[in-house]
Amino acid sequence: MNESLDKIFNAKSIAVVGASTDPKKPGHEILKNMVDIGYEGKVFPINPKADQILGFKCYKSLSEVPEPIELVVFVVPAPVTLKIVEEELIPRKKKFNDTAGVVMVGGGFKETGTKEGEEREKRLKELLNSAGIRLIGPNCQGIIDTTSKVNTTFDVGDYRKGGVSVITQSGALSCSFLMWAKAHDLIGLDKFISFGNMADIDVVEVMEYLADVPTTKVIWVYLEGYNDGKKFLEVAKKVSAKKPVIVLKPGRTQAGATAASSHTGAMAGEDQIWDAVFKQTGIIRAYSLQELYHTTRAFEKLPLIRGNRIAVLTVCGGLGTLCVEEIASSRYLRMASFSEEAKRRLREILAPTATVGRPDGYIDMTGSVTEKLHNEALRIVLNEDGVDGVIFLTTPPAFLPQREWAIELAKAYNSQPEDRKKPVIAVLGFGDSAMESKKALEENSIPAYDFPEIAVRVMDNMVKYYLYREKAQGA
Amino acid sequence: MNESLDKIFNAKSIAVVGASTDPKKPGHEILKNMVDIGYEGKVFPINPKADQILGFKCYKSLSEVPEPIELVVFVVPAPVTLKIVEEELIPRKKKFNDTAGVVMVGGGFKETGTKEGEEREKRLKELLNSAGIRLIGPNCQGIIDTTSKVNTTFDVGDYRKGGVSVITQSGALSCSFLMWAKAHDLIGLDKFISFGNMADIDVVEVMEYLADVPTTKVIWVYLEGYNDGKKFLEVAKKVSAKKPVIVLKPGRTQAGATAASSHTGAMAGEDQIWDAVFKQTGIIRAYSLQELYHTTRAFEKLPLIRGNRIAVLTVCGGLGTLCVEEIASSRYLRMASFSEEAKRRLREILAPTATVGRPDGYIDMTGSVTEKLHNEALRIVLNEDGVDGVIFLTTPPAFLPQREWAIELAKAYNSQPEDRKKPVIAVLGFGDSAMESKKALEENSIPAYDFPEIAVRVMDNMVKYYLYREKAQGA
Repeated sequence: MNESLDKIFNAKSIAVVGASTDPKKPGHEILKNMVDIGYEGKVFPINPKADQILGFKCYKSLSEVPEPIELVVFVVPAPVTLKIVEEELIPRKKKFNDTAGVVMVGGGFKETGTKEGEEREKRLKELLNSAGIRLIGPNCQGIIDTTSKVNTTFDVGDYRKGGVSVITQSGALSCSFLMWAKAHDLIGLDKFISFGNMADIDVVEVMEYLADVPTTKVIWVYLEGYNDGKKFLEVAKKVSAKKPVIVLKPGRTQAGATAASSHTGAMAGEDQIWDAVFKQTGIIRAYSLQELYHTTRAFEKLPLIRGNRIAVLTVCGGLGTLCVEEIASSRYLRMASFSEEAKRRLREILAPTATVGRPDGYIDMTGSVTEKLHNEALRIVLNEDGVDGVIFLTTPPAFLPQREWAIELAKAYNSQPEDRKKPVIAVLGFGDSAMESKKALEENSIPAYDFPEIAVRVMDNMVKYYLYREKAQGA
Repeated sequence: MNESLDKIFNAKSIAVVGASTDPKKPGHEILKNMVDIGYEGKVFPINPKADQILGFKCYKSLSEVPEPIELVVFVVPAPVTLKIVEEELIPRKKKFNDTAGVVMVGGGFKETGTKEGEEREKRLKELLNSAGIRLIGPNCQGIIDTTSKVNTTFDVGDYRKGGVSVITQSGALSCSFLMWAKAHDLIGLDKFISFGNMADIDVVEVMEYLADVPTTKVIWVYLEGYNDGKKFLEVAKKVSAKKPVIVLKPGRTQAGATAASSHTGAMAGEDQIWDAVFKQTGIIRAYSLQELYHTTRAFEKLPLIRGNRIAVLTVCGGLGTLCVEEIASSRYLRMASFSEEAKRRLREILAPTATVGRPDGYIDMTGSVTEKLHNEALRIVLNEDGVDGVIFLTTPPAFLPQREWAIELAKAYNSQPEDRKKPVIAVLGFGDSAMESKKALEENSIPAYDFPEIAVRVMDNMVKYYLYREKAQGA
């Protein structure tokens, strides 16, 4: 276990240098978010002009805090940060032997593209290194831990605990992910780390740490650059064998690489090399932001798939057709196969207008469907040996109560034995106009998407990971 | 002008054969939706067992209706439909010379893949044809007209009037689009036609008709198959020169073609040929459902673009980087170019941490941004000769009021002269957690998306259309 990371994520006392009384400033939001998430450790705002902020007693400087501080957050300009690190933080670390790490929120370092910024970052790292203090950042939002309730971000307050851990070079982007998911309660969070320029603690170290954190089920990564491909490859292989890692990495184009460099000072590196690294390590490379978002949440919610044969169960022929088309053009999936017995039983219970097995693995129940039939049809399909996973699609018929059919579908899904559970993904044609159905499905562990192409891409990524694990375990 | 279509869309009296008192039946929903949309013509429910439904007096059969009926909707099984057409509808058409068209909701025709179904469809068409009655369907939902308030669908009730017209072989899929958009008021509808098996009135005839309907600004098409590529090509060229047409057509794969055939009896045809047809006609082929949805709504809301140079204005470096990357890998777009004067002014007003012009056409305002700066920065960018369109991206800073910054952005956008207006598309990292911002942008005619890749794809399609129109007009 990585001791510094463990201490940082479980810090029992936090100082915020640059704490602000102004609700429009990040130095205020950080304190507010700590309160919102329910952090119970000690909090020391550092502000020479205020007596207290949000009920916490203020100190004029780090030097004045009379107790140990395990984590220090800096929200002051770069030159001031360096001065305080040198003149206050390092001396007090010698005295208390307390501080495990710092979070540097501000920019003004390598990402500026100037020699001055680069040298400033180098100096900062050297100073902290000499004192045995680890650095998160600079130019970042720091960490959230939903168990210890440590939260140094200025975007995200209270968050539901769950199995997703986030590693990121863009704090704002990843906080966006959390807020995006929060609106419809799509994921639960375990740990979050934003390290911006990644001058010290980096993606490899955190991945390795999270591989052994039992509460982390899936790892979400936004990476702009990393200069040691070999080290990444070695560690990623081991992590991937334990849990799925989904990475979005820009830098496929020159313009993208330039933008990344002006954002976090990252050197994107040859994209072909990175592509090869991801392939060899079983890491799932997302090619778009929504692929990253939606794949992650499926891995959190669903059991791992154990094959590539997908059945398509639809209420709407148009959505069903598009789904079959996407499966046929996917990388790893193929249509499931139904036994004659299953087809016979399905034809027996469904309306005469229904289509069963044309093409194989496909059922269009049509709008002439009842709540109960959602349950019965899905049970038959899940029981088939030739089926590894199911995509269910619907435009919720106006004459069925929105919640009821969803509950019936979920009952069939959750009637499977836990150790042999096959994943089911839903596509809801009405989007947010079918909010009741959506909510009922999500609450019952069936992820619901708006578009068939997303459901298929997510399933494809799940099978990609299954194939890697099979191979890794066989080797 | 196509007289039969015009009469059907403006029918002053409608009979529903198979009208039902049971709210769970389509034969009831159709009547309910007519009431909801506010249809003011005459309505005749045909039901031998009921006296009245939803306040409309019932008739035992079509023959008993003493007045002209301009449109007849059939919601009864296929064999019954044929019988009534032959024994009641055709005789009364001879007497009243009234009925312009029928909507056949039910299936049981060509889409069954049986000889019986195919012959039934042929016979139906012959019968109607001989009586001069046009056929919409079978196996469809019929039409909506937001001006005349005719509505024969069983999924969509009242709908806001606007510039999108929908042509579709999947009624349920396209009603899904309308309901999906309705949840956040994303589009306004002009006309809707779902013709399922498309036995008579077809995609070409309707496209040609809509090209001259002044209230239709953009045409949305879901097509599973069409057997006269040459005719399609000729008409589509003319339509495309007048207004944008966006088409989603499955059939790229064998499995997709089979599913389409079991849905609407369509023969998908060689996909390469279709791809060539779309290219030659300037029709925008969408490769996924969400591309179809989001491209359509951008064309409705925004002015046409007049060049391919896109400026990227961001508050979040991660989103900005991903957007630049997508532009660099797009088909038609390239990054805009800023004048020295614009860069100087931007650096002057933005925070020192901001990035301007690295890469060219890119501005990262960073989280240190105010409401007003949204306005000022966008004005400077829109005034640049080297900019044809703008993508604005943000993770709304927690310390800015959600509505205010969006209003400031919209002010800058709407300060442009109408005849030289450049399109602006927004990406909101927080998704539905930033609902206030989203709403303020959409209300002020800036479409707001959740993901940068979608915004770029939409912009790419707008430029594709611009290039076609330029060429078509130049030739």
